[in-house]
Order: sequence, then structure tokens, then C-alpha cells
Amino acid sequence: MDREARLREWEERAEPYLLAPSLLFLASYAVRVLIPDLSPGWQAFWGLVTVVTWGAFIVEYLARLLLSKHRRRFVRTHWLDLVVTVLPLLRPLRIIEIHDRMQRRRDHPRLALEARVMTYAGLTSLLLGFAASLAVYHDERLAPHSTITTFGDSVWWACSTLTTTGYGDVTPITPRGRLTGTGLMFVGVALVGAVVGSFSSWLVRRFRVDGET
Amino acid sequence: MDREARLREWEERAEPYLLAPSLLFLASYAVRVLIPDLSPGWQAFWGLVTVVTWGAFIVEYLARLLLSKHRRRFVRTHWLDLVVTVLPLLRPLRIIEIHDRMQRRRDHPRLALEARVMTYAGLTSLLLGFAASLAVYHDERLAPHSTITTFGDSVWWACSTLTTTGYGDVTPITPRGRLTGTGLMFVGVALVGAVVGSFSSWLVRRFRVDGET
Amino acid sequence: MDREARLREWEERAEPYLLAPSLLFLASYAVRVLIPDLSPGWQAFWGLVTVVTWGAFIVEYLARLLLSKHRRRFVRTHWLDLVVTVLPLLRPLRIIEIHDRMQRRRDHPRLALEARVMTYAGLTSLLLGFAASLAVYHDERLAPHSTITTFGDSVWWACSTLTTTGYGDVTPITPRGRLTGTGLMFVGVALVGAVVGSFSSWLVRRFRVDGET
Amino acid sequence: MDREARLREWEERAEPYLLAPSLLFLASYAVRVLIPDLSPGWQAFWGLVTVVTWGAFIVEYLARLLLSKHRRRFVRTHWLDLVVTVLPLLRPLRIIEIHDRMQRRRDHPRLALEARVMTYAGLTSLLLGFAASLAVYHDERLAPHSTITTFGDSVWWACSTLTTTGYGDVTPITPRGRLTGTGLMFVGVALVGAVVGSFSSWLVRRFRVDGET
Repeated sequence: MDREARLREWEERAEPYLLAPSLLFLASYAVRVLIPDLSPGWQAFWGLVTVVTWGAFIVEYLARLLLSKHRRRFVRTHWLDLVVTVLPLLRPLRIIEIHDRMQRRRDHPRLALEARVMTYAGLTSLLLGFAASLAVYHDERLAPHSTITTFGDSVWWACSTLTTTGYGDVTPITPRGRLTGTGLMFVGVALVGAVVGSFSSWLVRRFRVDGET
Repeated sequence: MDREARLREWEERAEPYLLAPSLLFLASYAVRVLIPDLSPGWQAFWGLVTVVTWGAFIVEYLARLLLSKHRRRFVRTHWLDLVVTVLPLLRPLRIIEIHDRMQRRRDHPRLALEARVMTYAGLTSLLLGFAASLAVYHDERLAPHSTITTFGDSVWWACSTLTTTGYGDVTPITPRGRLTGTGLMFVGVALVGAVVGSFSSWLVRRFRVDGET
Repeated sequence: MDREARLREWEERAEPYLLAPSLLFLASYAVRVLIPDLSPGWQAFWGLVTVVTWGAFIVEYLARLLLSKHRRRFVRTHWLDLVVTVLPLLRPLRIIEIHDRMQRRRDHPRLALEARVMTYAGLTSLLLGFAASLAVYHDERLAPHSTITTFGDSVWWACSTLTTTGYGDVTPITPRGRLTGTGLMFVGVALVGAVVGSFSSWLVRRFRVDGET
Repeated sequence: MDREARLREWEERAEPYLLAPSLLFLASYAVRVLIPDLSPGWQAFWGLVTVVTWGAFIVEYLARLLLSKHRRRFVRTHWLDLVVTVLPLLRPLRIIEIHDRMQRRRDHPRLALEARVMTYAGLTSLLLGFAASLAVYHDERLAPHSTITTFGDSVWWACSTLTTTGYGDVTPITPRGRLTGTGLMFVGVALVGAVVGSFSSWLVRRFRVDGET
């Protein structure tokens, strides 16, 4: 009980401070991918930022794992935490927990239910789309016969994937790029589906209210 | 209180009159994009129409901003008005407010809830698709290696984008064309999703009524 | 009142008999499109079938229009009838009315609500997909640089359009083919969306019942 | 009554044991497709596994058909069983019945409704996607002008089909491959639609609970 309480306390306190390394990690990854011809000094600096922030995630996860009483159960119930610790580019998926905590502190939610779902799902898919664009651009940039040669191509591909439009004028061809693409398709489809569904239900509610008054 | 009331009054009165410049703006943009080899006189005329109508939107927005008591709050709550003032091609998105006002004047809505959602979302996506076709055709027409060479190609691309089919046989390749395309994907996907959802719920309701009676 | 009653009676009686010419029309169109090198005799025969069945649709529509008291209102409330009379390939859309009438005669519907929606929307989209495949194959078959050269290509294109997959390996390039394609996208998207929605709700209901008992 | 009871008993008992041959059938098919240059001995062995497991399905179906009192009704109500007996690659679709039976034995379901729908629909679509990848790879591998030359291409195609993204960079071109593709589009679209819908409703419920407490 004592330990679990301490763990909860730690989680509540650490969460907002972990948002900063999450953004730092994404920034360092973005800089290293988008500016390949950095001077050696900057390259070392941003490499260090990547390693340190990733290290912070691992330390935080292990600390919580050791603090918890039932470690096996901790791993099972916090499986998303393990995933985002191993693949920090998926960190945006954890926004929902931060959002939950912030929401609880306020007394009255400011936004309607649909608006909150749209905000959460929209933001998460935007961040995931950006992370996937970076990863795919990194893998495809120098591959022979690749159609993704600029970061703009990669963002265009990510947008057409997230909305399931799938033009196919630019597509990843390397195995790692396609693995990222498959992940983006499934995760993105679900998130964008949630945005569309919430928008649709918000629209229906808006029209219903107008019709009745 | 006095000022806010005057603002409301202005909004109620100005709205129907602003529909005309909206259509005029779209018409002048369409003429200038679709008929590039106009005589200098007509070119100047339609250019003037574009400038005057756009100016009217800006004047109207600023007037309402100045009339409002809490200007900061006005900008926050009327953010869509700011967007459609800066990018008048997105004006169709404001139809919902005009629709709301017209609906309130009538006592009984003539159409079922689903039909109204479908009409609104369908009309908006049609107008946005037309505006996007024009903008993309304007950007892609003369770009080297472009696949969009006629206005028909552009409309075909817009339709396959709005329904998320995304054939990819014709796609924008210029940065501005792709920016328009990205916007159309996200806005369009949400609107068409609303149409499909409403149609589906209308169909289910129709079958339910038949089954029970 | 007398006239309206006679009109209703006519509609009730004529409906099942009109299913036959609908299928005959589709069959004659299919034969003429799929077997272009018919002997002159057969060509004349199937051409006659097309003309006679189409004529029957027009006669039936006009008869109902003349029998109705409020002709203007008849045109407005029966707009789908006008559409399917002018474009008989869209006849499958009228299945819903035949289905309604048959349903009313029975006391208890045999299928669950979702199953009925899925059956109706699935059948209609299959028939429309078949009609669109025929129309597109007819228009594209001999067009220069066309990618749709066999009826199989056309069916493959129609399937990838109806499900909004949109591979884009085969796509119509003629204006008429693209017009058909646009129609199939919008109508098909709505119908397949209804099928998916009903399937999803049926699945949820099935799991809910299992969980509660 | 006696016979029907015996049939039920048989079904309840045989079901878990039939999961093993289902997986064995899939494994033997996978091995024979993915490793075409097996030694003759292994080829004969895996061929035998395919034949024996398929035979087991047929025997089980016939046994149940013969045991049932109303054979005609059995065929009508168990049509899915007939389909998966003729095309054993579609076996994953029967998971729902096994799942149902297992669910009934437990007193309290461990997962929320949405999680169960997502698990079932997600698992089924994954298995079907794998089976379709194998079948399409088998048909397309040696076809002239085929774009699907490795199993990776086939999996990439199946993923982009299941999510209705449909890039179209790799697509089946043989009639049998396209038939498999059409089936995957329709079945997959419905299953993935169910996953997206459930995820969306779970997300809404999660936000609603947070907002109210």
C-alpha cells in the first residue's frame, strides 16, 4: 500500500516533467534526420540529446517497475508504457494519460465530449504522422528507386495514409519503411476514424439542438 | 450590452447579403483560373471583383471585431470567421451558420435530422471540392511533369480525394497543390464521413419503422 | 381521393411486374456491351429489348404522373423515380421500395434489422457495381491509352471503387467513364458505409448478448 | 431430440480439437507457398498434412450434417461452415463461434465489450490477411509483369487493402489473385470497420467517464 501510493505519487509528479524529454527526443530525432550534413559538434550534441532522453524514459519505466508491488501485473497493465519506452517515436500515444490527469484536476471540462475526443485523436495522429514521416524519410531517402526523396514527399505520403486515401504516387519500398507504413495505417486509421465519428456525432447533435429549439 | 446587441443585429442582417459576395468571389476566381486567356479588360474586371469581395469580407470581420466588447474573446470564439476571411475559398464552411439562422426563423424543420446533416455536409463538401479543384488546377496546370493538365483531371482528383478512394492516377506535385490536397483530405474526409454516417442511420431508421409497423 | 387511390393500387400491382423489365434491360445492355460482335439479327433483337423495356419505364412513369392529382408534388416527392427512368442503369436503387412493399405484406420480418440493412445495401451496391462496370467497360474499351481493356479489369476497378480502396492500377480516362466513376464513388461509398456500419453494430450486439447471458 | 443433443455435444467437444487442424492447415499451406524448393520428402509430408487436415474438416462437416435431423435446415443455418469447409483458408471466420463457446463457460467476461469486438475482428482480419497474402503470393509470384514478386510485397498489399488505403504500387494482375483481392476488400473492410467503430466508441466512453467523475 505504501509502495503503491509512492508509485502513484511519482507518476503524478513525473508525468508533466516527462512531456519535455518526449518533445526533446522528437526534436533531436527530427534535427538529425532533416539536416543530415550537420557539423560534427552539433551531430554529437543532438546524438547525446537522443541518448539522454531515451535513457530517461528507460530509467523512469524501470523505477516504476521496481517500485510496484506486483511486477508481473505492472507489465501487463502498463503494456503501452513498455511499447513507448522501446519505441519512443510512439510516445504521442501516451498523451491520453497526461490528458486524463490534467482533466481530473479541473472541476468542469471546458470542451464538449466530441471536441475532446477530436482534440485528443487529432493531436495524437498529427504527432504520429510527423514521427512516421521522419522515420520513413530516414529509411527511404537514399534507397535506390525510392519515390520518397524529400521530406515533403514523406509528409504527403503520411497524410494520404492517415486519411486512407492512399494515392500511391509516393510509397515506401524498403522493408523498414513499409513496416512503419503498416503501423501508421492501422494506428492512424483507428485514430482518424475516431475523429470522423466524433465530428459526425457533433454535427448531428448541433443540428438536433437547432431543430428542437 | 448595447454594443453586443448591435453586433448581433449586424450579424443577423449582414449574413444573407454576404452570401452574394461569397458566390461572386468564387465566380471571379473560377473565371480567372478556367479562362486564362481573357481579354485585358475582362481580366481587370474579374480581378477587381476578387479584390472588392475579399475586401468586403475583411471590412465585415474588422467591423464586427471593433464592435465587440471583448475583442480577444471574439477572436477565440469566431476563429472560423478569421480563417475564412484570410482564405475566402474556405467560405463554404460558414454555410452552417447561415443555415442555423434560417432554420431558427422557421417553426418546423421540413427535413428529417439525417437529411439536414446530409444536405449541409454534402453541399459544403461539394463547394469545397469545387474550390480545391480550382486551386489545384491553378497551381498544377503549368508545372513540369504535372499529371493534372485539364480542369476535368482536377475535378476527378478532387472526387477521388473526397471519397478517400485515392486512385493516384492524377495527383498534385507542387508544394502548394499538395497543401490544398492535404486540407481537402482532412476536411473532406470528415464531411463525407458525416454524410455516410447520416445516410446509414437514415437507412436503419427507415428499415426499423417498416419492421415495426 | 379516387384518383390517388387508383394510383396507389396501380403502384402496388405494377411493382413486381416491373422487376422483370428491369432485369431484362440490364441483361440486354450487358449482352450488347459484353458481346460486341453479335450477328445482326441478335443485335437487332437485343436492341429492341433495350428500347421496349426503357419505353415501359417511361410509360409507367408518365401514367403515374398523369394519374396523380398534384403533378408538381408528384415530381418532387418521386424524384428518384424520374432519375431511374432517365438512367435505367440506376434502377437497382429502387429495390428499397419493392422491398418495403414485400416487407409490409409479411407479418413478422424474418431477418434482424442489421441483416435487412446489409442485405438491401449489399444487393444494391452489387447491382450498381455491375451496371457501372458495364458502362465503364463500354466507354473505355476502345479509348486510346485506356487501362481498362477487358470486362475483368472493369469489375476489378468497380470493386476497388466501391470499397474506397482505389488502387488506381486501372482507372477510367474518358469523360463519360469518369462521370460514371464519380457517381459510383459517391453512391457506392454511402451504401458500403451502411453495410459496414450495420455489420459493426450486429457484431457489437452479438457480443453484448453473449456477455450478458 | 436425442440426435440433436448428440450433435450439440459433438460440436461442443470437437470445436477446440478442430482449432489444431485449422492452424496445421494454414501452416502446411504457408510452408508449401513460402518455400517452393522443398526437398521431395518434405514436400510430400506437408502435402499430406494439407490433405489430411482438409479431409478432417470435410468429415466433421458431413458427420454433423448426417447427425442433424433437419438436414436442409442444417445447411441453411450453417452456411458459413460449408464455406469454410470448401475454402479452408477462410477458417479464421469461424473463430467467432469458438469464442462464443469459450465465453459462455466463463461467468464474467474479463474484457469490456469494445475490447472483445476489437480483439475478435482484429484477430480475424489479421489471419485472413495472412491467408490472402499467401494465396495472392502463390498466384502472382511467377505471373508475367507481376508487381508482387516477394512475400513482403504480398503482405504490404494485404495491409493496404485491409485498411482500404489501396496504394496500388503492388496489385494482383491474375484473375485468381484479383478474386482473392476482391474477397479481402469486402470481408476486410467490414472487419476493420468494426475495429475502428469499436475503438472510436471505447475512446468516447473513456472520455465520458473521465468528464463525469
